[in-house]
Amino acid sequence: MSTAWTSRYAQRAKSIKSSAIRELLKITQRPEIISFAGGLPAPDVFPVERFREACCKVLEKNGPQALQYGPTEGYEPLREMIARHTARYGVKAKPENVLITSGSQQALDLIGKLMINPGDRVLVEAPTYLGALQAFNVYGAEYVAVPSDNDGLRTDLLEAPLRSGPKFMYVLPNFQNPGGTTLAESRRHELVSLADRYGIPIIEDDPYGQLRYEGEHLTPLIVLDRENLRRDEGYHIGNVIYLSTFSKTLSPGLRLGWIVAPPEVITKLVQLKQGADLHTSTFGQMVAYEVARDNFLDEHIKLIRRVYGERRDVMLKALEDYFPAEVTWTRPQGGLFLWVTLPEGMDCRQLFETALKENVAFVPGDSFYGGSNAAEEGRRHFRLNFSNAKPEQIREGIRRLGVAIRNQWRKLHPGYDRPVDQHVFD
Amino acid sequence: MSTAWTSRYAQRAKSIKSSAIRELLKITQRPEIISFAGGLPAPDVFPVERFREACCKVLEKNGPQALQYGPTEGYEPLREMIARHTARYGVKAKPENVLITSGSQQALDLIGKLMINPGDRVLVEAPTYLGALQAFNVYGAEYVAVPSDNDGLRTDLLEAPLRSGPKFMYVLPNFQNPGGTTLAESRRHELVSLADRYGIPIIEDDPYGQLRYEGEHLTPLIVLDRENLRRDEGYHIGNVIYLSTFSKTLSPGLRLGWIVAPPEVITKLVQLKQGADLHTSTFGQMVAYEVARDNFLDEHIKLIRRVYGERRDVMLKALEDYFPAEVTWTRPQGGLFLWVTLPEGMDCRQLFETALKENVAFVPGDSFYGGSNAAEEGRRHFRLNFSNAKPEQIREGIRRLGVAIRNQWRKLHPGYDRPVDQHVFD
Repeated sequence: MSTAWTSRYAQRAKSIKSSAIRELLKITQRPEIISFAGGLPAPDVFPVERFREACCKVLEKNGPQALQYGPTEGYEPLREMIARHTARYGVKAKPENVLITSGSQQALDLIGKLMINPGDRVLVEAPTYLGALQAFNVYGAEYVAVPSDNDGLRTDLLEAPLRSGPKFMYVLPNFQNPGGTTLAESRRHELVSLADRYGIPIIEDDPYGQLRYEGEHLTPLIVLDRENLRRDEGYHIGNVIYLSTFSKTLSPGLRLGWIVAPPEVITKLVQLKQGADLHTSTFGQMVAYEVARDNFLDEHIKLIRRVYGERRDVMLKALEDYFPAEVTWTRPQGGLFLWVTLPEGMDCRQLFETALKENVAFVPGDSFYGGSNAAEEGRRHFRLNFSNAKPEQIREGIRRLGVAIRNQWRKLHPGYDRPVDQHVFD
Repeated sequence: MSTAWTSRYAQRAKSIKSSAIRELLKITQRPEIISFAGGLPAPDVFPVERFREACCKVLEKNGPQALQYGPTEGYEPLREMIARHTARYGVKAKPENVLITSGSQQALDLIGKLMINPGDRVLVEAPTYLGALQAFNVYGAEYVAVPSDNDGLRTDLLEAPLRSGPKFMYVLPNFQNPGGTTLAESRRHELVSLADRYGIPIIEDDPYGQLRYEGEHLTPLIVLDRENLRRDEGYHIGNVIYLSTFSKTLSPGLRLGWIVAPPEVITKLVQLKQGADLHTSTFGQMVAYEVARDNFLDEHIKLIRRVYGERRDVMLKALEDYFPAEVTWTRPQGGLFLWVTLPEGMDCRQLFETALKENVAFVPGDSFYGGSNAAEEGRRHFRLNFSNAKPEQIREGIRRLGVAIRNQWRKLHPGYDRPVDQHVFD
């Protein structure tokens, strides 16, 4: 059915496809499905009672303010809290450096709006976060994709892409989505030094940085950047803009993220945010502030680390037990995801359909590549989330996936039958 | 101070100016200011206790769901409630026709994103809502402005502008912002009939429709549209898309609005919303649903009508008492605003500065015109809000404004001294 509307969509809207993940989430919400698809936090760790207390306190003490329009920049005490928190990691930031956004997704949209003219190139990791691709696509971005390995972005391959003049780089240094990999310390130094040399700014997206289950915290790019350290207007932020969120630590349902950037960039983003949604929910911001304060957030993150760390371990063990040796996967030190690579000849889309019949879901790899060649680049990969399902579901889901993989593999290699297969039928 | 960022902003971002209103709001938040500037609801009528109860109920009964990611389309019971509510006014709507947005402002942004290519024309009333101009400007909209009078948009002047091929029309039929005027019944019929004849769709923005203080409710455009009535897929929505919000009835701080549109348009908007903020706060939607349900919203709106109706009356009386006869203003039957016209030769920008010295604020008229000639078109006009200040403040603020107008008028007309002036010094 078409209307006067459908014949009139703007160029950009005609080319927009729905995110595979969002469509999948609809299927995977059926209760019988074991879903490794979404990036959903575990609902059993949400601090529901603390939220209830915070709502009561906010409404009893500041009800009219909480329900009224507020400043586009965000709720001042929350901006101050985030500036203090950012300073902990070595970045000198002031509240004027912080813009509260309606989730990190809005941060990506506003940055796309601010920076991208149709045809502009954005340098991304391959694979990269599909929500960023979705946000930037609307503004006509094209992509320069740089491969990653187990130590993150291959900085040794950066020079030629940087010479091609991308508008900015978009990088997830910690427990990357979808790769689960972490950018090594030496590569962090190389990355900011190359960015400085070529004058290409960096978006550092860090939704998972606090969810580390082993190893040492690595220095954020925003702290390493020389341009940042040269600045002395009371803050140290220049060519690296830093994004983070409460979605993985407190609650994604609140839609609360933030951008840390130089004030002149914040000013522009504020103007764009005015036109986009005026401001993020005053009530939501005040409640998040009340929930997070007095070190509650730090304590709560310790609980999340324990729960997700265990789930990661359960998934890694199940993968070893149930997946054929020809399949490989990353071993993330934190975050929510790991990245599976199938052997030559296999196709994650076929596997996805088979798995769904067994009530197991994941996200096929092609969603995470920006170029026209995405289907090919993503064919042998898929992303698994380990934060949402409970340990016993994780084990059962990986077992079923293992069966599906072996069945597909046997079709390709009729003689295939290895002893390890017996695991599957335990 | 410039960085690698500032030299790289996209074309659109370079031309974006901050909304005058948002900047003004910062000044006008000083407690000594009597502000008629913003479109702020009266904080004293927010149903704070009802909100507290709703928060407790949502978190006790559905805490994990409320804090988790949710569908981009919105919280299903809220979509159903809005569909039922829309049906009351004669539009057959289903939940699939409803998209929940992060305030009406996001609805305008998504529609701009969906519909506008750079250089596309949008037909607007002159003057019109500045937030819509701000949202559409980002996408490179140009404007075909059609004058209004006390009965709203001059439909007798529509044919030539429609022949110029605008992408769509943007109209606020009820208690227009900033005009305070309402589109007359006969003009509503003419408007939808012309839209039908020229095949130009309509955005009907109706944030204030329920806040009527006198006279009878007039039929929405979406109900009158012939194209809508011809449709029989279980809903009656075609060439008119309808926008509304909880901002003026429950709370603007929650940022909750909605779009009623054909499902194929909703699908496209959902895809764009995914990239913009994934979804609107799950918790906020569930709380709003709990607050509004069981007819609470209807009862609460009766209270708002009483309070705002009284404030409108106080402002109209004060204007008669304190403003010179050479100044005219609209007499809104509802909503939050009225529109003042100064006599030939006067300038609202000068008046704005004088008034601010007297601690009174309003929004100068030029903010509400889309074209390059905005400063000229808006010079003799300004917008007054009557919902936010209390009656005694309204009277005092209008008295001070009256003094400021007379002082400016006397400079232009040195001999001017009319008996009515004595009011000012009462």
